[in-house]
Amino acid sequence: MSKRTSLGIGLAGFGTVGSGVWNTLARNGPLITSRTGGGISLHVARILVRDPGKTRATCGEVPATLFTTDWRSLVDDPAVEIVVELIGGTTDAFDIVAAALRAKKPVVTGNKALLAERGVELFALSRECGTPIHFEAAVAGGIPIIRTVQDSFIGNRIRSFSGIINGTSNFILGRMTEAALSFEDALAEAQQLGYAEADPSLDVNGWDAAHKAIVLATLAYGFPIDPNAIHVSGIQQVKPADISFAKNLGYALKLLAVVREHADQAVEIRIQPSFIPKAHILASVNGVFNAVAVHGDTAGESLFYGRGAGQDPTASSVVADLVEAARALRHQGDHRGFLPYADSGRLVPVGDTSTAYYVRFDVTDRPGVIAEIARILADHRIGISGTHSPVNPSNPDADFVDMIFLLHTCPFGKLQAALDEIEKLDCINSTPVVFRIESLT
Amino acid sequence: MSKRTSLGIGLAGFGTVGSGVWNTLARNGPLITSRTGGGISLHVARILVRDPGKTRATCGEVPATLFTTDWRSLVDDPAVEIVVELIGGTTDAFDIVAAALRAKKPVVTGNKALLAERGVELFALSRECGTPIHFEAAVAGGIPIIRTVQDSFIGNRIRSFSGIINGTSNFILGRMTEAALSFEDALAEAQQLGYAEADPSLDVNGWDAAHKAIVLATLAYGFPIDPNAIHVSGIQQVKPADISFAKNLGYALKLLAVVREHADQAVEIRIQPSFIPKAHILASVNGVFNAVAVHGDTAGESLFYGRGAGQDPTASSVVADLVEAARALRHQGDHRGFLPYADSGRLVPVGDTSTAYYVRFDVTDRPGVIAEIARILADHRIGISGTHSPVNPSNPDADFVDMIFLLHTCPFGKLQAALDEIEKLDCINSTPVVFRIESLT
Repeated sequence: MSKRTSLGIGLAGFGTVGSGVWNTLARNGPLITSRTGGGISLHVARILVRDPGKTRATCGEVPATLFTTDWRSLVDDPAVEIVVELIGGTTDAFDIVAAALRAKKPVVTGNKALLAERGVELFALSRECGTPIHFEAAVAGGIPIIRTVQDSFIGNRIRSFSGIINGTSNFILGRMTEAALSFEDALAEAQQLGYAEADPSLDVNGWDAAHKAIVLATLAYGFPIDPNAIHVSGIQQVKPADISFAKNLGYALKLLAVVREHADQAVEIRIQPSFIPKAHILASVNGVFNAVAVHGDTAGESLFYGRGAGQDPTASSVVADLVEAARALRHQGDHRGFLPYADSGRLVPVGDTSTAYYVRFDVTDRPGVIAEIARILADHRIGISGTHSPVNPSNPDADFVDMIFLLHTCPFGKLQAALDEIEKLDCINSTPVVFRIESLT
Repeated sequence: MSKRTSLGIGLAGFGTVGSGVWNTLARNGPLITSRTGGGISLHVARILVRDPGKTRATCGEVPATLFTTDWRSLVDDPAVEIVVELIGGTTDAFDIVAAALRAKKPVVTGNKALLAERGVELFALSRECGTPIHFEAAVAGGIPIIRTVQDSFIGNRIRSFSGIINGTSNFILGRMTEAALSFEDALAEAQQLGYAEADPSLDVNGWDAAHKAIVLATLAYGFPIDPNAIHVSGIQQVKPADISFAKNLGYALKLLAVVREHADQAVEIRIQPSFIPKAHILASVNGVFNAVAVHGDTAGESLFYGRGAGQDPTASSVVADLVEAARALRHQGDHRGFLPYADSGRLVPVGDTSTAYYVRFDVTDRPGVIAEIARILADHRIGISGTHSPVNPSNPDADFVDMIFLLHTCPFGKLQAALDEIEKLDCINSTPVVFRIESLT
């Protein structure tokens, strides 16, 4: 194949990100070609859409002949040399990616749910077919964290990732912090501004972050990870009082995804609201921004920050992957899209993961409440570093109050056992709310 | 060449970083090989040193047969396929790099001074010989900013870089902030801790940062940059009073390197102590850490943070470059080490660059001083947003005082003209000190 021939892309999906890819190629195509020494030029050869008649705002008009409603005709089109999967979901998307791999067409995808839930099958197929899957856009939108780990940190054993990787949650927590909004009001604001979907479940319940954490862990450690085995809790239970409490103690409250290497090929993965020290650079990640702190044994502590979603940032990552795939196709170079699945490796059960904790109890206030809770914690050998009950000035003798305990570092399983016992006390009105306190050292 | 053969490296220089590269390959060699699908394995084939008899603390003993004191025997050794230049300076280092390129041996270097001062010649030679130069380690140690710009942001027109890229200066400013130390005391502390050299000139006078900024600008914009044409000022004139003033206004005082695209292929490059908004993530970069904020037209605002120097972080970048070079050699892929020099492009004269300013005058206090300064500023149509003179409580009627002016945004040349005039007033005792106030939007 001539090095000068333009390379055809099939865009499966033409929503926000798909049209962002179109626009970026239209705007910066010549720049990209010049940066590859003239070797690579890309054009969109086919676009899968649901409704070809829909009006679309793009940079330059999209010829109607490019549209198809049948994904097979896109994957099979000889003019399509690379397939970009942007339709989302884990069924049709799976079929498209699998068909492309079988047709020896490299795949670029930003579909974190697909990779987290069916990555094991797809990466096996990718190796079998010798055709790579590129997925920079799947984690933290415009932040090039995947390539950084794969290439720039290739000489590093990855000790941990600590990530703020759901922009919607971070925006909501930020508004709750700045304006003392309730979770519900902050969520409504995020929806109004287009930062949260009509159905925000995956964002606020932690599962969007969990999918990304699984992709990061797969990249760094290689073994197949069962999504059902990891601990995920979202931000729905956060109250403004938790945030101001965190603030007074010198912390910021963030939805943190933690991936950490233990001894003996074991890896801890969890997503939870967490107190992080104000002085840590992660605490300065505000609004819809994302950041991933990476600890490599050679590079030390690093952090990568940027826009975690949105049309252009995500398109930036898709385009970088397209150039990578195109270079390998044109120059017969080696592909870097294969995940070296390890045969061994295992998840650390969440019960064995240790941090300090912030626990909020909803109690019926009467003399003896603190003593009863403290007694059970003592029985379980869990240390208390502080207790606090925010007083309501308009009703200082309220019957139902929040009682906060700060607890020393212990395994989560031990805490859970104590909390199960505490929950049975008749003064406790609902399941205690637990956040992590991270030292991030 | 067999894909399974180990690839020989020549290390020209075996100081901190060189032995870090040795250690990283010793520790993580098998991991690196497994991550390249078994295709790439690296070994050190030859080491250039001054004194082969010197005792060295390395991970595993270095066979004495590897050492040579003659760089030509290293470059010419058929066992050496890639040359790593780590001796520093711009004379012998230049000869080694040039000889390696002519011998078609890819070069990996962390020598920012060499690239900033003689990069034009070397990159031309690199293109002529078809042999790449890799230089991730030249800017911000362990932070993979070079590859990010080259590969991950290939679809982006780079709007600007704003970098804290001298760890020594950042540590000194940090100590002056936390402990109200004088510049001299903070420098002495940095030297004691090994964060500053015995001769700290290049670090504190801004030139180390300037070399890195030139490399970044070359990467993004491609045209040859004359180091003498850029505006560089260091931190020697910073006083604790400037820092506390910045703090009270909601700013942090940092040595900031700014590279910014203007219209018509013009680029602004300057290194100056700058006030940056406390809320900006760059303000949270403390101690010896480095960070580079990158604004791409597609990715938007991003930031890359990590260790900017030190044995292991720098070795991490060298090793990533080695793998990149090795992959291209083994798989006949395309090299990415060529800088696409543009024929056009020019520097914006510093006089035409605009920000707001903090100006400190050393004045003999008498009635009328503020009026005289304000009059000249008014004549030059420069707006004043505030004036302040820190009162010395032990001598409130001191004759010689600092008088601070905060000035609205205007071209630096205009400010300079006004300051030249002000400096001639008999109440002004020395050249005014000027820091930038950056909005970073």
